Amino acid sequence: MAAVKLEIIKKDTRTKARLGRLITPHGVIDTPVFMPVGTQATVKAVSPEELKEIGAKIILSNTYHLFLRPGHNLIEKAGGLHKFMNWDGAILTDSGGFQVFSLGDLRKITEEGVEFRSHLDGSKQFLSPELSMQVQMALGSDIVMAFDECTPYPATHEYAEQSAKRTVRWLKRCKSILTTTERQALFGIVQGGMFEDLRKENAKEVTELDLPGYAIGGLSVGETKEIMYEVLDYTVPLLPEDRPRYLMGVGSPDALIEGVMRGVDMFDCVLPTRIARNGSALTRFGKLVIRNAEFADDFNPVDPTCDCYTCKNYSRAYLRHLLKADEIFGHRLMTIHNLRFLQIVMQEIRQAISEDKLPEYRRRFFADYGYDI
Amino acid sequence: MAAVKLEIIKKDTRTKARLGRLITPHGVIDTPVFMPVGTQATVKAVSPEELKEIGAKIILSNTYHLFLRPGHNLIEKAGGLHKFMNWDGAILTDSGGFQVFSLGDLRKITEEGVEFRSHLDGSKQFLSPELSMQVQMALGSDIVMAFDECTPYPATHEYAEQSAKRTVRWLKRCKSILTTTERQALFGIVQGGMFEDLRKENAKEVTELDLPGYAIGGLSVGETKEIMYEVLDYTVPLLPEDRPRYLMGVGSPDALIEGVMRGVDMFDCVLPTRIARNGSALTRFGKLVIRNAEFADDFNPVDPTCDCYTCKNYSRAYLRHLLKADEIFGHRLMTIHNLRFLQIVMQEIRQAISEDKLPEYRRRFFADYGYDI
Repeated sequence: MAAVKLEIIKKDTRTKARLGRLITPHGVIDTPVFMPVGTQATVKAVSPEELKEIGAKIILSNTYHLFLRPGHNLIEKAGGLHKFMNWDGAILTDSGGFQVFSLGDLRKITEEGVEFRSHLDGSKQFLSPELSMQVQMALGSDIVMAFDECTPYPATHEYAEQSAKRTVRWLKRCKSILTTTERQALFGIVQGGMFEDLRKENAKEVTELDLPGYAIGGLSVGETKEIMYEVLDYTVPLLPEDRPRYLMGVGSPDALIEGVMRGVDMFDCVLPTRIARNGSALTRFGKLVIRNAEFADDFNPVDPTCDCYTCKNYSRAYLRHLLKADEIFGHRLMTIHNLRFLQIVMQEIRQAISEDKLPEYRRRFFADYGYDI
Repeated sequence: MAAVKLEIIKKDTRTKARLGRLITPHGVIDTPVFMPVGTQATVKAVSPEELKEIGAKIILSNTYHLFLRPGHNLIEKAGGLHKFMNWDGAILTDSGGFQVFSLGDLRKITEEGVEFRSHLDGSKQFLSPELSMQVQMALGSDIVMAFDECTPYPATHEYAEQSAKRTVRWLKRCKSILTTTERQALFGIVQGGMFEDLRKENAKEVTELDLPGYAIGGLSVGETKEIMYEVLDYTVPLLPEDRPRYLMGVGSPDALIEGVMRGVDMFDCVLPTRIARNGSALTRFGKLVIRNAEFADDFNPVDPTCDCYTCKNYSRAYLRHLLKADEIFGHRLMTIHNLRFLQIVMQEIRQAISEDKLPEYRRRFFADYGYDI
C-alpha cells in the first residue's frame, strides 16, 4: 500500500480538470492544490498555525537547503522535519536537483551525481540520487521527489534528450533506495524540455516504473506561458489517470487555472511568498504593489473580497507603512494574504469543477484579474 | 477626571514596592508593569494578538519615528494609532525628545525646540514641546510624555542644571497644549542627571504641575547600575505616592526587580525585543545565546519553565537553525519568548508583593539567574 494515493472524485466534462483527494500519512488534501514553499523548514514569515488558518494542508520544503543547513541528520535526530518545524500537515520535499543545477559554474554533473559548492560557505558538496533519497528519508517527508536534472531552457534536442535519459537512469536508482513505503511515496519527474517526442519517450520510461505520483518538470524555467501550456497539452495525457500530477514551480493565478484545466492536480511556487515580502499583493483585481505611493492613505483592506487575517484587520496604508519601514510584521501580513488568496482561488477552482463551471469561472476570474483571454 | 489614574492596592512593608492598577481609556493594567516597545506602530516581529497572549496590556510607541514616517496626520486620518495598528490595549508614546537628542551633530537645540535632520532622508525637521504634543494628540495615545531633554551622561553639574531647567520650561509649554483630558494623560519627566540636588529641585518643579503621572528620565544612559539605583533611591521618594512612576528605558530582569523595590511602577525597553532578534533569550537561568553552536542539537525548549508559544512548540535547535538562516519566523519566536519571560517576571513580582515576599523573590531570582547579590 502506497503512502500517498489520489482518489478522483470527479472528472470535468469540458476540460481535463479533475477533482480529487490526496491521501497522505499527514492528512487528506483536496485537489487541485497549491502548496506553499517552506524552503528552510519554515514558510517564510508565517507560523504553522497561520498556514492552517490560511487553509494549507501540504507544504513543500527543500532538500538542498536543509541538507546544507542544519543538515538532515540533525533533523532526523529531532524526530523528522514535521516535528522539527511543528507542522503536522503533509510535506513534499524536492530532491535538491533543481537547486544544484541552478548553481551554474559552481557544479559539475557526472553519471554518479552532482558535485557542487555550497552557496553558504563555498564548501565542496555532493548530491546523487542515492544521497537525495537518504536525505529525504531522514527528513521524513510524505512525498519524496526523484533526483532529476531540470533541463534548462533553451536546450538543444540533443541535450534535452541526454538529460532526460539521465533523469530516468537516476530515477531507477532513486527507486532502488526508496522502495515505496507506507510512510513515504516517491514521485517521478518527467523531463524532455519543450520537445514533444522527448516528453513522450520520457513519460513512457518514467511511468513504467509505476510510481505513486508524477511531476512535470522543466517548465516555468524561462519559456513563455504559451509554450508551457502547449507542453502541458501534450504531456499531461501521457501520465496515468489514477496518479497525482504535479506541475513544479508554478504559482501565478492564471497558470494555476490553466494548469488545472490541462489536468494538473498539484502546484508549488515561491511566487506568493516572495512577492509578498517585496510588497506586492495578489488580489481578485490583479497584482497591487502595496509599496507604491498611491496606497499611502488608502485605508481599505488589500482585497475587500478576501477573508484573511490581514484583510480583516489592516489597511493598505498600514501595510505600506510597515513595508516602507522594513518591518517584519509587514512581511507576515502580506504573506498571509497572498497565500490565502491562492488557497481561495484553488477552493473556487474545486467548487467550479464540482459544479461543471470551470471554463466560466476561468473567464470571470481572468476578466476581474485583468488578463486578456 | 484624568484619563489615567493609579489605584494602589498594596504597599510593600519592607521595600518601597507598590502593587497597583493603572486605569486607562484602553484597559486596566496591573502594576508594576513592563511595556514592550513598538517603535514604528508595530512591536517588531509580533502581532497584537500575540502581545495579548503574552500578557501585554500596554505598549510604548515612538513619536519621533511616527512623526517622520508615516506622519501623524496620516495616522490621525486612519483613526489614531490604536486603530491604525489594530491594538486596542493602552499606548504610551514618548515625546521624540530622546531620539532627536540622540542624533548628536545632526540636531541643534534652541529654547524654541530642536532642529534636526531626519535619519531617513536627511531632510530638515523641527520638534518642539508644542509640536510633540500635537503629534501625540494626533496619535491618540493614552499616555503622552512631555518633550524633555534626556540629559546625557556624563554631564557637568552646570549642564545638567540648565538642561533640567529647560525641561521644566518645556513641560509647562506641553501642559498648556495638552490640558489633561479624559482621553489622554500627560506625564512629566524628572531630569537632573546623577546629581541629587538637581533631581530634588527638578522633581519639586515638575510635581508642582500636578500631572497624572511622572517619569524618571536620564537613567540607563551609560551610567553603572549602582549609580542608577542610587539615583532611584533618592529620586523616587520625591514623587507623589498616588501617581504612577515610570522609569524610562529599563528592561533587564535585574533592573526591573531593583526598580520595583525602589517604588517604580512602569518600565519600557527595547532590550527583550532587540536581543531576541540578535539571537539571545532571557531565561530563568540567565541569558542564553541561542545562536551559539552549543545549541545546535539541543532539543529542549528555550526555557523549560516558560509557558510561551515558543517554548511549548519549538526547540533551541530549531530556533538556532532559523536564526542562522536569518528566517523571519525565528525573530518572531525569540521575541515572543523574551516578552513573555518579562511578563512572567513582572507577574511573579506582583505576586511576591502581594504575599510580602519580594526580597525573598529577588534573592531566589538572582540566584537562579546567576547574579551576585
